[in-house]
Amino acid sequence: MLDRVAATPLYRQIELQLRDAILAGRLRPGAALPGIRAFARELGVAAITVITAYDQLAAEGFLDPRPGRGTLVSADLAAMQRDAGRRRARPRGGTAAGRVGPDGTAGDTVRRPALPAVNARGPVTPFFTDGWPIVRFDFRTGATRLDVFPNRIWERCIQAAWRDLAMGHGSATSYLEPEGDALLRRELAAYLARSRAAHADEGQLVITAGAQGALAIAARVWLREGRRLAVEDPGSPYLQRTFRAQGVGLEHVPVDDRGLPVDRLPGDVAAVMVTPSWQYPSGGTMPIARRLQLLDWAAERSALVIEDDCDSELRYEGHSLPSLQGLDQDGRVLYVGTFSKVLYPGLRTGYAIVPQPAVGPYVAQLEAAARGPGAIEQRALARFIADGQFERHLGRLRAAFAERQAALVEALERELGRVVSAAAAPGGSHLVVRIEDGRMTATELARRAIPHDVAIEPLAGSAHHPIPDREFLMHYGRLRPDEIRAGVERLARAAADRPRRAIA
Amino acid sequence: MLDRVAATPLYRQIELQLRDAILAGRLRPGAALPGIRAFARELGVAAITVITAYDQLAAEGFLDPRPGRGTLVSADLAAMQRDAGRRRARPRGGTAAGRVGPDGTAGDTVRRPALPAVNARGPVTPFFTDGWPIVRFDFRTGATRLDVFPNRIWERCIQAAWRDLAMGHGSATSYLEPEGDALLRRELAAYLARSRAAHADEGQLVITAGAQGALAIAARVWLREGRRLAVEDPGSPYLQRTFRAQGVGLEHVPVDDRGLPVDRLPGDVAAVMVTPSWQYPSGGTMPIARRLQLLDWAAERSALVIEDDCDSELRYEGHSLPSLQGLDQDGRVLYVGTFSKVLYPGLRTGYAIVPQPAVGPYVAQLEAAARGPGAIEQRALARFIADGQFERHLGRLRAAFAERQAALVEALERELGRVVSAAAAPGGSHLVVRIEDGRMTATELARRAIPHDVAIEPLAGSAHHPIPDREFLMHYGRLRPDEIRAGVERLARAAADRPRRAIA
Repeated sequence: MLDRVAATPLYRQIELQLRDAILAGRLRPGAALPGIRAFARELGVAAITVITAYDQLAAEGFLDPRPGRGTLVSADLAAMQRDAGRRRARPRGGTAAGRVGPDGTAGDTVRRPALPAVNARGPVTPFFTDGWPIVRFDFRTGATRLDVFPNRIWERCIQAAWRDLAMGHGSATSYLEPEGDALLRRELAAYLARSRAAHADEGQLVITAGAQGALAIAARVWLREGRRLAVEDPGSPYLQRTFRAQGVGLEHVPVDDRGLPVDRLPGDVAAVMVTPSWQYPSGGTMPIARRLQLLDWAAERSALVIEDDCDSELRYEGHSLPSLQGLDQDGRVLYVGTFSKVLYPGLRTGYAIVPQPAVGPYVAQLEAAARGPGAIEQRALARFIADGQFERHLGRLRAAFAERQAALVEALERELGRVVSAAAAPGGSHLVVRIEDGRMTATELARRAIPHDVAIEPLAGSAHHPIPDREFLMHYGRLRPDEIRAGVERLARAAADRPRRAIA
Repeated sequence: MLDRVAATPLYRQIELQLRDAILAGRLRPGAALPGIRAFARELGVAAITVITAYDQLAAEGFLDPRPGRGTLVSADLAAMQRDAGRRRARPRGGTAAGRVGPDGTAGDTVRRPALPAVNARGPVTPFFTDGWPIVRFDFRTGATRLDVFPNRIWERCIQAAWRDLAMGHGSATSYLEPEGDALLRRELAAYLARSRAAHADEGQLVITAGAQGALAIAARVWLREGRRLAVEDPGSPYLQRTFRAQGVGLEHVPVDDRGLPVDRLPGDVAAVMVTPSWQYPSGGTMPIARRLQLLDWAAERSALVIEDDCDSELRYEGHSLPSLQGLDQDGRVLYVGTFSKVLYPGLRTGYAIVPQPAVGPYVAQLEAAARGPGAIEQRALARFIADGQFERHLGRLRAAFAERQAALVEALERELGRVVSAAAAPGGSHLVVRIEDGRMTATELARRAIPHDVAIEPLAGSAHHPIPDREFLMHYGRLRPDEIRAGVERLARAAADRPRRAIA
C-alpha cells in the first residue's frame, strides 16, 4: 500500500489514502480509525508518521480526534455520504496526477449545471487578431521592437529601482500608494508640463495599468448608468473595447482631416474621446479653432473630454503639439497617456491627469480594483525620466521613425508607385497608404500578402461605419529600414499576384 | 521681448508669444503677420528662427500660411474670439509656470459647470486608512517588510528576466498575451497543482493585477445586472471594496469558527466568496464537510464560488490545506491567489484559475481593461518559481512567521496576561487578540496605543454587522521578534493609561 521509493513522504501517502477512502465512502462517518501504534506497526512505519497524517486530516475536518477514545471519521461528513457515488476522490500529491479530469467510472452521474450566465460583452475582433498569423515583415500596429531602446541603461534603472525599494525607500513593501510611485509622479508631472504644456499637478497625476487601465477607471467614474461616449471613427478598436467591456455605449463620429468634427457630436453623450495631437489611425492634427470649439461644447453640456495623447510624442517635425488639456481652464479634460508605444508594451504603464474634483473617486476606483504596474517598473521609470534618459530616448526614437517612414515612402513609390499612394506624415508610427487601383481592395491585398510573409492592416478594420476598403496601415515600429524595403518588395509581388479564386 | 539668456530657445519664445497674443485676442483672425525677413530683422534673429516658429503655429492651426500672400492668423479662430475674454493664455515653456491656475484677471467670468456626476461608490474607510498614522511598531494588516526575502536572488531574477525580454524571448515587446507570461503560467500551474492540490490547467490560469484585479474581472464577468455576492463577515474590506466599486451588492454572512455557515447563505446571491484555508481575518479552517456542502449549494443554484486562497501558504503546521477548487468536479470555483502577501505587495501580482467555460470571456475582460503586471516582473517570478526559490522562500517565511507569532503570544502573556488572551494559531500573518477586561474596547486601546508609537487594528473594522468591540488584530509581517516584544511592552503601557477625557 505504501510506496517506499516514491518522492511523496510516507505520512503524506497515508494521509492521501485515508482521504480518498473517506471521500469515496469506504470509510464511513463515525467509524473508528486504528490506534496510532497499532496502525504504525501494521504499516511498518514510525508512530510519528501516522500522527502526522492524522493531524493533517483532523485540521482539514476529515477526522475527529477524541482524547481517550481514539480517532473517528468526522460525523459531520454524514450528509456528504448521500452523494458519495457522485464524487470521486482523485489522485493527489507531488505529481501532475493532481490535474487529471473526471475519472470516467461507470455509473457516475456528474451534475454540471451552468454557472451564472457569463457577460460576454467586450471582445471585438480587429483584423487578424483572431488567429494572428506570424510573418517576417509585420506592418500591423500594436507592437514594437526593442532595437531602438537603451537596454543597458534601462537595466541599470531596474536594478537601482529594486535596490531603492529593497532598502525600504519606496512603495514595494506597502499597499499605500494607489495613485502610483511618488517619485515617478513628480518626474512625470514635470515632463508633461514641459513637453506637453499640460496642467500636470502631481496631485492630479495617477499611474495606471496602461492607457486601457486609465480608461477603464474613467468608465466607472463617469460613464455608469447608461451614459454614452462619443468616439472617433475610425479609431482605436483596442481602446473602444475597453469601454465596451465596461458596458458603455459608444457613438462613432466619422472624422475628417482635422479630427473629430465637433458640430457632428450627438446630443446625448456624456463624454467624448479624441486624439487631437495625432488622430489614430488616420493621422492629422486637430487645429486650435476646433479644440476651442470642443472645450466650449463640453462646457455647455457639462461633458467630459477624454484626451488620448498616446501618439503625441512621436512628432518628427518641430516639437510635440501642446495638449488639449493644457488649453482647458475649467477642468473638463481627462488626459491619458502611455509608455507602451514609446518604450515597450510589456511595461503596461500609462497615466492620467484627472480633473481636480474627480481625483478622490478616481483614486478610490484605482485602489479598489485597478492599481497600476509593479513597484520596480514604476521606480525604474522615475529614474529613467529623472536622468534625462527618457527624453534622450524620445529623440532617438523620433529620428529612427522618421528614417523608417522615409524608407517606407520611398520603397512604396519605387515598388508600388502605380498602385498606391502615400504621403509622408510629420509623426506617428504608421503610414496610411491608399490603393489607387480600383480593382483591388485593401483587404484583398492584405490577404494576398500573407503567403509572401508580409502583414498589413486595412484601415476599415478600425472603422465602425463602413468606409471604402481602399486604405491600409503600415506600421514601422517593428522593422528596420532594410526590412521595410524588403517587405515592400514582397508586398509588390503580392499585389501583382492574380487574385485567387475560391474553390467551390 | 526675447530673453537671450533663457533656456527656452528663441524660436520657441516667438512661438509662445504669438500663441498667447492670438489666444488673448490681441492678434485677430485674418490679421496678417509680419513677413519673415522683416520680422527677423526687427527681432534681431535669423530668418530660420521665425520660420520655425511660424511652421509650428501653422501645424497647430493658429496660422494660415498663404503662398505669395504671407502668413495670416487663422480665420477659423473667429468663432473663438467671441469668448476671448473668458480664456487666458497662460505662460508656458520649460518651467513650472506651465502649471499656474486661473490667473484671476478682473472681469473674467470663468464658467465652471460640473462634469458628468461622478460615481463615488466604492471607497470604504477601514480603520486608520483615513489619515493612517505612521508609527514605529505597526501591527496593522496590509503591508510587509522585505527582511525575510532573498533580495539578491530576486535581483538576479529581475536582471535575467529583462535580458530574456530584451533578447526577444518574451512578451515585453508585444501586447499579445493578455492572460500573462506563458512561462510564469506554466510554472505557477505546476506549483498550484503540487502545493494546493488545485486543478491548475495552464489554459485556465491567468495572471492578474493582484487578487483585486482577478476579482474586479470576476465582477464584470459574472456579477453584472444587479446580481449579488455573499461575503464572509468579518472579511477583507479591501476585497469587498473591489466588488462594491464595480456596483456589486454584497450580502454579509457572519462566520463561525469553521468559516461561512452554508445554511445561512441568502437565497438570492449569484456567487459567494470564501477563505476556506484560513478565514480572513478571524482565522479558522473550513472543514471538509462544510466544503462539500458549499459545493452542493453552488451546484443546486448554479452559483459561482470564489475561493480567496490568499493566506493559505502561511500555514506553519503540517502542509498547506488543499484548496476547495481541487475538490470541485463541476468547474464552479474561481480560485484566486496573490504573491503580495508572501513576496511583497508592490509586486501587485495575483492569479486566478478560471472555470473552463468562462475562460474566453474572462480573458477578453482582462485584455480589454485590466491586464496583469509588467513583463519583467512576470518573467522574474517565473524564474523564481522554476528555480525552486519560491518554495524555499515560503519555507523560510513560515519559519519566521511561526517564530514571530510565538514571540507575540509570549509577550502578550507576559505583559498583558491579565487584560487580553490570544491563542496561538497554526497559520496566517496576524493574531486575533481578545480583551478580557470588559472596561476597555479594542477601539479605545487602539486609540491609546498611537501616542506610544504602536498601531493595532480592531477586528470590528473588518465587520459589517456590529460585533462586540473586544478583539483586535496584531499583524507580525512587518516586525522582528525583538520589535514585537518592544511593541507589546508599549501596548501594555497604553493599556495602563488612564482613559483620556474629551476636552469640551
